[in-house]
Amino acid sequence: MNIYADNAATTKLSRKALEEMLPYLEESYGNPSSLYSLGQKAREAIEKARAVIARCMCASAREITFTSGGSEADNQAILTAAELGRKAGKKHIVTDLIEHHAVLRTLAKLEREGYEITYLPVHENGIVRIEELEAAIREDTCLVTVMYANNEIGTIQPVREIGAICRKRGVLFHTDAVQAVGHIPVNVAEDNIDMLSASAHKFHGPKGAGFLYARKGIRLSGLIEGGAQERGKRAGTENVAGIVGMAAALEEAVSNREANAEKLTALRDRLIKGLAAIPHSALNGDAEKRLPSNVNFCFEGIEGESLLLLLDDRGISASSGSACTSGSLDPSHVLLAIGRVHDVAHGSLRLTLGDDADETQVDEIIRATSDVVTYLRGFSPIWRDLTTGKKEFIL
Amino acid sequence: MNIYADNAATTKLSRKALEEMLPYLEESYGNPSSLYSLGQKAREAIEKARAVIARCMCASAREITFTSGGSEADNQAILTAAELGRKAGKKHIVTDLIEHHAVLRTLAKLEREGYEITYLPVHENGIVRIEELEAAIREDTCLVTVMYANNEIGTIQPVREIGAICRKRGVLFHTDAVQAVGHIPVNVAEDNIDMLSASAHKFHGPKGAGFLYARKGIRLSGLIEGGAQERGKRAGTENVAGIVGMAAALEEAVSNREANAEKLTALRDRLIKGLAAIPHSALNGDAEKRLPSNVNFCFEGIEGESLLLLLDDRGISASSGSACTSGSLDPSHVLLAIGRVHDVAHGSLRLTLGDDADETQVDEIIRATSDVVTYLRGFSPIWRDLTTGKKEFIL
Repeated sequence: MNIYADNAATTKLSRKALEEMLPYLEESYGNPSSLYSLGQKAREAIEKARAVIARCMCASAREITFTSGGSEADNQAILTAAELGRKAGKKHIVTDLIEHHAVLRTLAKLEREGYEITYLPVHENGIVRIEELEAAIREDTCLVTVMYANNEIGTIQPVREIGAICRKRGVLFHTDAVQAVGHIPVNVAEDNIDMLSASAHKFHGPKGAGFLYARKGIRLSGLIEGGAQERGKRAGTENVAGIVGMAAALEEAVSNREANAEKLTALRDRLIKGLAAIPHSALNGDAEKRLPSNVNFCFEGIEGESLLLLLDDRGISASSGSACTSGSLDPSHVLLAIGRVHDVAHGSLRLTLGDDADETQVDEIIRATSDVVTYLRGFSPIWRDLTTGKKEFIL
Repeated sequence: MNIYADNAATTKLSRKALEEMLPYLEESYGNPSSLYSLGQKAREAIEKARAVIARCMCASAREITFTSGGSEADNQAILTAAELGRKAGKKHIVTDLIEHHAVLRTLAKLEREGYEITYLPVHENGIVRIEELEAAIREDTCLVTVMYANNEIGTIQPVREIGAICRKRGVLFHTDAVQAVGHIPVNVAEDNIDMLSASAHKFHGPKGAGFLYARKGIRLSGLIEGGAQERGKRAGTENVAGIVGMAAALEEAVSNREANAEKLTALRDRLIKGLAAIPHSALNGDAEKRLPSNVNFCFEGIEGESLLLLLDDRGISASSGSACTSGSLDPSHVLLAIGRVHDVAHGSLRLTLGDDADETQVDEIIRATSDVVTYLRGFSPIWRDLTTGKKEFIL
């Protein structure tokens, strides 16, 4: 049995999205900036996609700017707020410790340019400490950026509440909603969001496409300068097929969202219950305020990488955390921020179920993980130290 | 007859490129940063594509960084040189007046940040004035950026000579080779190029993919910050299908290049001869040092936009200049730089032939253009003034 359980890393392109993309990869290849019919056909496809995406987000079409993905959207949103802030003499930004690197590294760049960044701690379940967030906002704060849902531990933040605080205090609010869009309800108006980043390949759209929502009145700074595409806010010939596929995938994801979420939540909880039965294991993140597809565990006394490779041998594709940081030997900054110690954080496993998941798949994941954890602990010097009492169990 | 004669704006995706892309849009959808087999398969595809592209450019694989397109590559190359320059106390950049907006607008941004930019004039045929370029290089020059071939008038610059001057003077040399790669011989080593930008959809690859060549030893500044993709030089999940399609298209373009160029040069010259027979018309750019597919004319006394729309009615897709600036009422900065006056520059027509072009197509373009120019002049107040002697002919 092959089980793809890494849908937070990327998802399979939807059949419908691919079908809608194909004409723009074949006959309708015009440049959307061209005046003749072939170009105008591409232009219409882009504007139709923009309207569809805007409707899915409860935004208006002019508030949607297409990008090459979520990272680009995060970079552009943050640099926009920084630039607006600089002009107003405000160079302080509030964020938290468990953001995606696309946010953290952009903020680090700003820090080198003289901005001051407050990195808020989070509760043990990964939820941002709202009171500390409110207290951190100052007269010179130009931006609060807090992700909608965490890519590693699936924790869903109180975005609407954060947005309300920002609006009350007159501070821009950006959210990296890459893991949320298409999976849980996101409504930019009701959620008090000023800017939002999303990535197509996280909701069964193609890789290489994303979008940035920016509330009317926010003048985006250009990250990629050049031609007048995207009303001058993002240069470069539009990835027409990618944009069309993204819109088709989002429309499909949003229309199936409730049914998928209900099904996945039940499967997720079954998976959590099964893995919790493994001795000295612990769920990372909140049990309830989490993405319907996300399960993240720490298993004491093992190495996450070996776990992944042996699960792969059993046909299961899983992750230890963010795909963007695999290859790095450092433990996840997210797990450290929720209080996992270095050794424990190393033994983490992220399983993110797909829409096609079922109980058979879940039970096979539980069985395989249990087998592999037991097997690896048989070799582990840390586990030997734990079981012989040389070290104390944490989990 | 439908004739697509705007291959400088974008090209039709090659059948082979699409076929190679499809598996990565269907079953092989893994995230290349993932450890398991599905991810590693995507990783291998990317690295194979990088090797193919490197070979086509006479570069090594580590010197190729994937981007979302030519504009992003231009932005990143220029900002890299600016950053390296700043650290060395060198904040002067040399360029010319007929660069693409992806270069010019990035330079304008640097100008606002305190860099000094020298914009060199060009000869009437669009060739950069080499002596002035050499004279413009100063002790504090950190970059020379000159395009390989112009996107509007097709003029091919003496890149190798410029590169040699830069190397002698110890200044980085970047070239926007978006119009050249796959169409004329480009060899980064022999051409003395330090950084080079290219875009897949200009050589029958997909939109949304491009690459930046940076000579070994040049540490690229990040334009999009985040995950560790592209060895930390470009964050964001890789557009696997786009990258694979780009490599397939480039390999195909390079292997057919000589035969295509020979055929297209003959057709181009036939088209130039035919259009030159229209009274009060003139070729823009050099007759010889020009891209094999590029024809660009000014016709006195008409509006370029009306010309395009009527050609579209006759089934011919053409352009007045850069697709990236269509919608703008300003005449082309390129035509102004080669000495066309405002009125004349407005009546421009760019025809860029495709690999499938033939004499029948070319003759139909000549016939249709001749008809439409005559028709439009019948309504034109400027033409009336010219023919009644109220104004003097320029062309």
